[in-house]
Amino acid sequence: MKGVRLCANGFEVHGEDPLASLLAFLDSILRGTGQVMFQNNSYTGLLFLIGIAYNSWLFALAVTLGTAVSTLTAMAMGADRILVRSGMFGFNGGLVGIALLYFLQPVPLTWACLILAAACSTIVMGAMLAAFDMWKLPALTAPFVFVSLCFFLATARFGRMELTGLLPTAGLPKTAVVEGVVDASTIAQGLLNGIGQVFFQENLVTGALFAAGLLIASRVAFAAALAGSLGGLLVAWGMGAAEPAIRAGAFGFNSVLVGIALSSVFLAPNRTAIGYATFGVVVTPFVVAALAAALEPLGLPALTLPFVLVTWVFVLACRQFERFRGDQEASA
Amino acid sequence: MKGVRLCANGFEVHGEDPLASLLAFLDSILRGTGQVMFQNNSYTGLLFLIGIAYNSWLFALAVTLGTAVSTLTAMAMGADRILVRSGMFGFNGGLVGIALLYFLQPVPLTWACLILAAACSTIVMGAMLAAFDMWKLPALTAPFVFVSLCFFLATARFGRMELTGLLPTAGLPKTAVVEGVVDASTIAQGLLNGIGQVFFQENLVTGALFAAGLLIASRVAFAAALAGSLGGLLVAWGMGAAEPAIRAGAFGFNSVLVGIALSSVFLAPNRTAIGYATFGVVVTPFVVAALAAALEPLGLPALTLPFVLVTWVFVLACRQFERFRGDQEASA
Amino acid sequence: MKGVRLCANGFEVHGEDPLASLLAFLDSILRGTGQVMFQNNSYTGLLFLIGIAYNSWLFALAVTLGTAVSTLTAMAMGADRILVRSGMFGFNGGLVGIALLYFLQPVPLTWACLILAAACSTIVMGAMLAAFDMWKLPALTAPFVFVSLCFFLATARFGRMELTGLLPTAGLPKTAVVEGVVDASTIAQGLLNGIGQVFFQENLVTGALFAAGLLIASRVAFAAALAGSLGGLLVAWGMGAAEPAIRAGAFGFNSVLVGIALSSVFLAPNRTAIGYATFGVVVTPFVVAALAAALEPLGLPALTLPFVLVTWVFVLACRQFERFRGDQEASA
Repeated sequence: MKGVRLCANGFEVHGEDPLASLLAFLDSILRGTGQVMFQNNSYTGLLFLIGIAYNSWLFALAVTLGTAVSTLTAMAMGADRILVRSGMFGFNGGLVGIALLYFLQPVPLTWACLILAAACSTIVMGAMLAAFDMWKLPALTAPFVFVSLCFFLATARFGRMELTGLLPTAGLPKTAVVEGVVDASTIAQGLLNGIGQVFFQENLVTGALFAAGLLIASRVAFAAALAGSLGGLLVAWGMGAAEPAIRAGAFGFNSVLVGIALSSVFLAPNRTAIGYATFGVVVTPFVVAALAAALEPLGLPALTLPFVLVTWVFVLACRQFERFRGDQEASA
Repeated sequence: MKGVRLCANGFEVHGEDPLASLLAFLDSILRGTGQVMFQNNSYTGLLFLIGIAYNSWLFALAVTLGTAVSTLTAMAMGADRILVRSGMFGFNGGLVGIALLYFLQPVPLTWACLILAAACSTIVMGAMLAAFDMWKLPALTAPFVFVSLCFFLATARFGRMELTGLLPTAGLPKTAVVEGVVDASTIAQGLLNGIGQVFFQENLVTGALFAAGLLIASRVAFAAALAGSLGGLLVAWGMGAAEPAIRAGAFGFNSVLVGIALSSVFLAPNRTAIGYATFGVVVTPFVVAALAAALEPLGLPALTLPFVLVTWVFVLACRQFERFRGDQEASA
Repeated sequence: MKGVRLCANGFEVHGEDPLASLLAFLDSILRGTGQVMFQNNSYTGLLFLIGIAYNSWLFALAVTLGTAVSTLTAMAMGADRILVRSGMFGFNGGLVGIALLYFLQPVPLTWACLILAAACSTIVMGAMLAAFDMWKLPALTAPFVFVSLCFFLATARFGRMELTGLLPTAGLPKTAVVEGVVDASTIAQGLLNGIGQVFFQENLVTGALFAAGLLIASRVAFAAALAGSLGGLLVAWGMGAAEPAIRAGAFGFNSVLVGIALSSVFLAPNRTAIGYATFGVVVTPFVVAALAAALEPLGLPALTLPFVLVTWVFVLACRQFERFRGDQEASA
């Protein structure tokens, strides 16, 4: 097995040996899975994949196929090798894969759509890298969100696309009333589901496996994920969100990602960053609620769009403020 | 009272004296209120505040609190001192404050939302300053619009937020029919209400006080505000808008702001600029009507979004045209 | 007729002779009509105009008036002469003209709106040139789309605007079912209508005249238009789109424009570009379906917005990919 060293943070590949190339490719796919929560670590990706497979083999297959197709597309187009190798062209494709299989029936046409959509995510990723280069702003999961919403919307015109019935019903937004009573089990389940929902998984063991995957890569990311999930949930509870949604982690997963991003990825992890990330985590449930309502007339879920918008705004803003001078990490 | 000189256009503050710092801070808040109509002048801000208080003490409190919170947030983050001092981090927070109290019941949770939302407006302002820097394009009241709409939308998921019932009813847009008959009183009231509605105030005395506030700062801005309100109103009348909306100033306030911005803020006030501003004022009611319809399925008001979009387009465009060469003023 | 040389690709004009200026202006209008499909060629524009007039004199008048007004506005503002001369400030105005007359009754107020809207398209074009300059990204038909949708939306507030009834009915998007049976006549008619619909013309002879106009300017563009129309149609058929929409060319015209843009305008026409353009053509019907559904609650057509978004994404993305290194053509 000479020619490649499968280490957690190294990129040493010598493409001459086919087996080495294959292993390097598999490693890129695992890293792509890890990159969904910003971890360029194949063992983290592997734990995420095991967590998904524990809940559903179908979703594990979908995320792997999506990551593989988008990574292969990037390789075929001649994308930057280091970005490809670290999974940066894979994570959006993986999420597209799991989203399509979540909301569309697992029929052959859906798998064909998955391949097309995952390839599209690479094009959108390329476009966003080019467009955002001048701000040094990351694309995050925006390619996944845009491509997935596009395919879900297309079901309103394409009669052969078959939905699972899990998309929200299209309707006009109405003023909410408080539903259900939040108790300790709501909090406990919501905490883990909030982490699991990053990959659409509402399963406590899966959430715990995701947390373990974060822990082996970064203690800060692990703590930020738990604090993010809890923070999102508590704010939603305080504002009077529906108990079933809180329990399912619907108000947690965007805060999880915001927490990780602001506390450990785009800012050096110090007290200022933790305060700023806390602010971001508190604001995120409002954006989750707002975008869920805004997409209601179209019958679409907000996915991770709240995380994307909040992170973009907070990352851009901190450059204007002296308090953060010198704290920003170089990130793509 | 050494340590600060409270002059209309100066920024001399020596922060050592607490009283001086406090006065400087109060001055920044008044300037922030004046900046809603582009006037970096604390006496103008004071007249605006008196105008608002004449109509409603609640709104005067809300605008002051919002301006104070967003200004304090900017100071805590270490934002550019000159921008903070001239009220540039205050005006969006002030508008957020008044908007939240206009559309939400004055209960404790609403005041908590006001504080959170005003702080958010500073983050969004920072992000827009960073994002728009390469175009030298102003953020205008976009942070106010985005943050306010986000909080209004969140009421569809957060059961403890209490609406006043003043938000438009969510519905699908329908073709309009001409409603009511426009007479001289419609025009006269619409003219002053159009200025008052910049701060959500439908009150003739308030509108007149706002106009007076403009007059003491800039005769061009005063004339542009009146001409803008009249122009917006006349176009809306000609196109067959509903009489009550015209009377209430609904088609005027965006044109007021477009008129001031294009004739005196972002272009040197000459004949070309006046012609260009007139074009902007005429176009604005169409954008007001369009955005009001576009937001109808979500039950949201367009706020000053038409002004923001029209001004961005017209400011960007004039750089492409030789006719304006050398006419653009340096503005943030 | 000295002072101007009316040649297909030259710009030699000496503005002193009024007749020469007039001819140059007419030539710019014809080029503007040709630029709708990226052809800076007055004979192509003339064939497009003949094709439109064959179907409807009203539309031929509307497109000519719109092109003329937007070109004159650009001249009055002092826009770049070479851009004006090559029709770059005309094609959005022309499309605005035809769109307004398609969806609004041909009453005097509509013609006034046409003039205002065409002038607006020049301002929006100027703004987009300024905004997109740093990405060297083209505005495409975005000014037409934004201005037209704005005027259509305004009909929900302006009671004197009279609709033709051709705008889609506002409603919430529903899951599609397969409607009708596609046969050879669907394919044949859809192929030509897909080209005709670029100018809102559902007429086989008109489509054929447009194709002829492309052929005299560029064989690659001609082939790309036919392949684009066919590709868009076949994908829509395969996905289960409604037969009447396929026959009418509704899934073709955006693919026509994407095909021309990616194979011959923004990339050098080689095998890589053809593969990339094919990918774009296949993706476009999904974006057409998605945007049609997204605009359904507002009762708006997607116009050429799918083409604009797909082309922006694909043009931006190819700069990230080594495979395209050196293949990009300099284009505004």
